Amino acid sequence: MTLKNIQEDVDKWTGQFKPQYWTPHEILARLTEENGELAREVNHLFGTKKKKSSEQESSMGQELSDIIFTVVCMANSQGIDLQKEWEQMMNEKQYGRDKNRFDKK
Amino acid sequence: MTLKNIQEDVDKWTGQFKPQYWTPHEILARLTEENGELAREVNHLFGTKKKKSSEQESSMGQELSDIIFTVVCMANSQGIDLQKEWEQMMNEKQYGRDKNRFDKK
Amino acid sequence: MTLKNIQEDVDKWTGQFKPQYWTPHEILARLTEENGELAREVNHLFGTKKKKSSEQESSMGQELSDIIFTVVCMANSQGIDLQKEWEQMMNEKQYGRDKNRFDKK
Amino acid sequence: MTLKNIQEDVDKWTGQFKPQYWTPHEILARLTEENGELAREVNHLFGTKKKKSSEQESSMGQELSDIIFTVVCMANSQGIDLQKEWEQMMNEKQYGRDKNRFDKK
Repeated sequence: MTLKNIQEDVDKWTGQFKPQYWTPHEILARLTEENGELAREVNHLFGTKKKKSSEQESSMGQELSDIIFTVVCMANSQGIDLQKEWEQMMNEKQYGRDKNRFDKK
Repeated sequence: MTLKNIQEDVDKWTGQFKPQYWTPHEILARLTEENGELAREVNHLFGTKKKKSSEQESSMGQELSDIIFTVVCMANSQGIDLQKEWEQMMNEKQYGRDKNRFDKK
Repeated sequence: MTLKNIQEDVDKWTGQFKPQYWTPHEILARLTEENGELAREVNHLFGTKKKKSSEQESSMGQELSDIIFTVVCMANSQGIDLQKEWEQMMNEKQYGRDKNRFDKK
Repeated sequence: MTLKNIQEDVDKWTGQFKPQYWTPHEILARLTEENGELAREVNHLFGTKKKKSSEQESSMGQELSDIIFTVVCMANSQGIDLQKEWEQMMNEKQYGRDKNRFDKK
């Protein structure tokens, strides 16, 4: 499943709704909501506030997928090619601004 | 109820727990979670995804209180005096960096 | 400085701009931005990615004030009385839903 | 570029650093920071606070890539297979819990 496929799949799925995509501010609010759900999961799994045993199974993978889904909605609604953007970012990480940002081994 | 009172009330309430305050990263994650709940409420009230009538009452005031509570926990855990910080910020808004940031009437 | 004073001060300061308050979605986006600045500060101070010595002074108190400011803007724009909401929340924490949420000493 | 490729590329790039991945709470804080940068961009492009002309070019595609990068770091650090999680989520959207969540055309 490539980034292009993912963008197409989301476009197909959202195509059944009206409007197909919310406004950028609404999609951003949804992303903030999904980010919050991941945050709760991180505190549950790794923080002081442990989950009760009945709810122990991790849903982190699904929370991460929800975030990607929302990011793809934003990209699709704005005509952004994530594959191209991803390559540009990785290129900059390797050769540009982020090159010496962290301690190498 | 002053900011000082608020910090004291939170300190008193959290004082019954062990540990009294989580780590900064855990409090931050909680803040992200609360921010997400506000985001859901904003989309419910003002966005495309309307709430069903049975859940129409706004909880925005409580969500905002939850955020303030979490901010106060962070401040208390780090020995930060919010009254002093608030005055410094308002002072900078009036006389400093933010003075000409937005369009005046 | 009481919560009422704070709401009045913000109302006075924002009163010089047009519009006085953004839409709820825009204020929420600003809150997400401020939350992000606090997150960067938390990682700088307590995480793996340490700040360089030239930027070591903590701005956490100012970041927390920025969050409170944004929360107050949201409350003011929606006619929410934060003092009343705060008391309701603390009351619920003491006698209601949150009473047994965490481990007591 | 598939989700598997993306996870591998990130793993290879992060493999040059020590530690390769931060703790979940640190990665979450980074995600909150990136979410905040997207929020600023959304307000700049679509909100009341317009950017000055000198900074008009949109960086939304890069902000979205930064979020995906951070999500992939979290997944890699926890041994999560994003391809599998993505398929499960899309499957649930089509046949499960989210099926009737929004208004169809």
